[in-house]
Amino acid sequence: MTNFQTSPSAALRLAAVDLGSNSFHLLIVEVDNGHFTELEKRSKKVQLAAGLDDQGQLDENVMIRALECLKEFGTIIDEHRVDRLRVVGTNALRTAANSIDFVIRAEQCLGQRIETISGREEARLIYQGASTAWQEDTAHCLVADIGGGSTELIVGSGTRPLALESLEMGCVVYTRRFFDNGDITEATMASAEQAARLELANITAHYRRLGWQRAIGTSGTIKAAAATLRAIHPRLKKGEITREGLAELRQKLIELGHLDRVSLPGLKSNRARVFPAGIAILSAIFEALNLEHMQHTNGALRDGVLLDLLARDTRHDVRHTTLSDMQRQYQVDAQHVDHVAATALTLFDQLDTSLSLDDASRQLLEQAAMVHEIGLGVAHNRYHQHGSYLLANSDMPGFSLPDQLALAWLVQAHRRQLPEPPPEHRAALPSDVLMRLAQLLRLAVVLCRARESSTDWQPALYAEEDTLVLTFPSPIPDLLRQDLALEHQWQQRAGLSLRINTP
Amino acid sequence: MTNFQTSPSAALRLAAVDLGSNSFHLLIVEVDNGHFTELEKRSKKVQLAAGLDDQGQLDENVMIRALECLKEFGTIIDEHRVDRLRVVGTNALRTAANSIDFVIRAEQCLGQRIETISGREEARLIYQGASTAWQEDTAHCLVADIGGGSTELIVGSGTRPLALESLEMGCVVYTRRFFDNGDITEATMASAEQAARLELANITAHYRRLGWQRAIGTSGTIKAAAATLRAIHPRLKKGEITREGLAELRQKLIELGHLDRVSLPGLKSNRARVFPAGIAILSAIFEALNLEHMQHTNGALRDGVLLDLLARDTRHDVRHTTLSDMQRQYQVDAQHVDHVAATALTLFDQLDTSLSLDDASRQLLEQAAMVHEIGLGVAHNRYHQHGSYLLANSDMPGFSLPDQLALAWLVQAHRRQLPEPPPEHRAALPSDVLMRLAQLLRLAVVLCRARESSTDWQPALYAEEDTLVLTFPSPIPDLLRQDLALEHQWQQRAGLSLRINTP
Repeated sequence: MTNFQTSPSAALRLAAVDLGSNSFHLLIVEVDNGHFTELEKRSKKVQLAAGLDDQGQLDENVMIRALECLKEFGTIIDEHRVDRLRVVGTNALRTAANSIDFVIRAEQCLGQRIETISGREEARLIYQGASTAWQEDTAHCLVADIGGGSTELIVGSGTRPLALESLEMGCVVYTRRFFDNGDITEATMASAEQAARLELANITAHYRRLGWQRAIGTSGTIKAAAATLRAIHPRLKKGEITREGLAELRQKLIELGHLDRVSLPGLKSNRARVFPAGIAILSAIFEALNLEHMQHTNGALRDGVLLDLLARDTRHDVRHTTLSDMQRQYQVDAQHVDHVAATALTLFDQLDTSLSLDDASRQLLEQAAMVHEIGLGVAHNRYHQHGSYLLANSDMPGFSLPDQLALAWLVQAHRRQLPEPPPEHRAALPSDVLMRLAQLLRLAVVLCRARESSTDWQPALYAEEDTLVLTFPSPIPDLLRQDLALEHQWQQRAGLSLRINTP
Repeated sequence: MTNFQTSPSAALRLAAVDLGSNSFHLLIVEVDNGHFTELEKRSKKVQLAAGLDDQGQLDENVMIRALECLKEFGTIIDEHRVDRLRVVGTNALRTAANSIDFVIRAEQCLGQRIETISGREEARLIYQGASTAWQEDTAHCLVADIGGGSTELIVGSGTRPLALESLEMGCVVYTRRFFDNGDITEATMASAEQAARLELANITAHYRRLGWQRAIGTSGTIKAAAATLRAIHPRLKKGEITREGLAELRQKLIELGHLDRVSLPGLKSNRARVFPAGIAILSAIFEALNLEHMQHTNGALRDGVLLDLLARDTRHDVRHTTLSDMQRQYQVDAQHVDHVAATALTLFDQLDTSLSLDDASRQLLEQAAMVHEIGLGVAHNRYHQHGSYLLANSDMPGFSLPDQLALAWLVQAHRRQLPEPPPEHRAALPSDVLMRLAQLLRLAVVLCRARESSTDWQPALYAEEDTLVLTFPSPIPDLLRQDLALEHQWQQRAGLSLRINTP
């Protein structure tokens, strides 16, 4: 469906889909010489999180509703002949026990990979999307985004986030938890607010120390609160929420008394049932962070995803910065890993025509080479496993969870026994591609073992059906020969076929 | 048996026992005003590693041999009325599948905790023991220690190690692996050397870059090589091994042809059977690191253990430096954790008389408080688990493996669900003490949640049988009250009893 070829001179069409816990969003833009034109913008209240049962399983009805929405989005994306598309999932897909079942069906339906992202990555992308509105202004800014399953809070300066948090509270989830019988009373509102304040307690001191000159809100709950307030008080500035206004909304909801009766001027009916929980969370934020005002802005997760997608072509790929930061934190020998990366890519580039490996595989191989030794910063013993743990569990700006899983697997697989590849659809690339990349990374590590970048054995590599054939043009030292013999055994044990020719 | 009370003015008697894979060693010294007097020094060739069967199980015969040796050591330690004793286990105890069975029996026999240490900690202690011979001299120095199960290689300057490695090769293990049928031939020697050179290949470039002005060897194999050479060439300097001399020994061993026939002037008969493997490893080291000479010195692991034991009373406790370094690496908010540590110790000090908690527990509580937030340097989500992983797996100078396990458990237990305590004898402290410390650490974390060190609730704490009773003298804020109520639930679920009194 999508065509990933770029022609930098031409206008580029980018699309982002956000599979949120309350709504699914689609945004398509055309970028021409740095100028953005919005071609399409759609939202659909799928309420994925409402379909989670007590065992954390997404039920079949909500899955069907979600797949129908994706079919619709897919048609629109096709019509616009989009060049690049990224689809991200958030809290509901992070928490659902059977999210992988949904992901497999959704990927088939959309013909496109779906990437679940972590809460803090979500916060980063939201801030990126929102901050386009003030990027030149470096005053500190607080951004709050109350979603269906999680709430993101960010303090930043200009486009740079200084603190990112994703808290486990959202309007859909809190509706289930605190308004299950439908009653809206002082007591039910207060317990939802209390729970939210406990979530906030861990971060308030840090956030207050950073401080901000203005507070910005994004996404549905906050947009609806602002719209409702303005419908009641037409003299209010568009998008503004005041502390008094919020208290008034809260009081009105308690007076209405039941979710079935929530109806307020300016409030869309499909927002009504999750509005009280959203207002409870927003009230807790106002109190914990001592806010007087909040201003709604339209920039949100999908905008951040698009900006990130665009930056990947340039030097500003945030993933590169993330990996460099990890190299620094774990004191990686950068010269050595650059040598390994160059060697691995030289091997890859001899293969890709014969094995139809795509650009995403090449990127992953390079990324894995960059961080394959970070585990040494923890301990030498079993360092590949420590590196793998760090890559699977760290906050890694720019990476989705499947990206991290693929990277973590490859780093674990770079020496000693090759582990089983991760289950299909959990990692960013299929198992057979990962196994092939592991083969290349391992060979590069062996070739660079002497850690003398001057030495370069420059073997030729080609694939003969499933067998990789490595041919050295000139004699190699004994130690390298023994090392390659050992490596041959490891690969054989993992069912990989390797032939080594030396003169 | 031992008495841990100190009286700093009096002379202090310290003992170290090293449960090596080839020999057990005992060293007792008296320290008076910084002056060391050696009171006792014993070694016994127990050959623990030779008792490991193919499944990695220590067999009963070798266990009995080892326990008899420890009984003997115990009697000597008693006779000398030792003030402090530390017993460390190395490679054989690291690798034996049933080492915990042996440790339990050995602890009963000796009436003293036995601490298995990691390979790199072993290397650090060996260097510390050896470097007393030249501590003022800061020229770079290489130290090699070929043990029964592992070989430690260190480059340092003065008393400061710059690179520490423990490689999986030793004279007992290599005898089993390469000389199992007893033959000493050019081929068997060469394969043992090749295996050793592959182990060395990972570190040689780094070590050569650091460089050294002299090479020092410690422990049995190297001592025996030097003694044998001098018996053959009386004009050699005492303890000196030359490249030519080593080649000569290697040739003589091949000429002897079988382990049963190894007999050389100056070589003790109980060293004979593991001598060829030791010479193969030493030859590989000479070749990989391009050595011409090596000088044997007597300082070894047990000396390092004693020096470490002595330093724990002073500001030079290496464990404190280790934890501070980890705080820096993972960017811990030091002010906050100091506050948590002070709060935890204030709680502890109100309890210790009623619950007979000892000084080791107090130290562990303080250490855990220092590093309970290091996991935040990996990710916010489940950070207590990341911290626990890092503490269980990092190279931590000064800490034994049971120390690390206790610390890792306590950090994991500091929030959310309390995990099962580690199996007895694996961690440095018994389960009931660990659970009690977790209770205190958790309360301290809750009391400091607001991260405002000015606020100090100063509750009184006492134990009423198994119940901890926490009493606040003045009213507390709502959030703290809710937080304590939640904490009460967590502790109750883990079977811990807590009562909270507020006015």
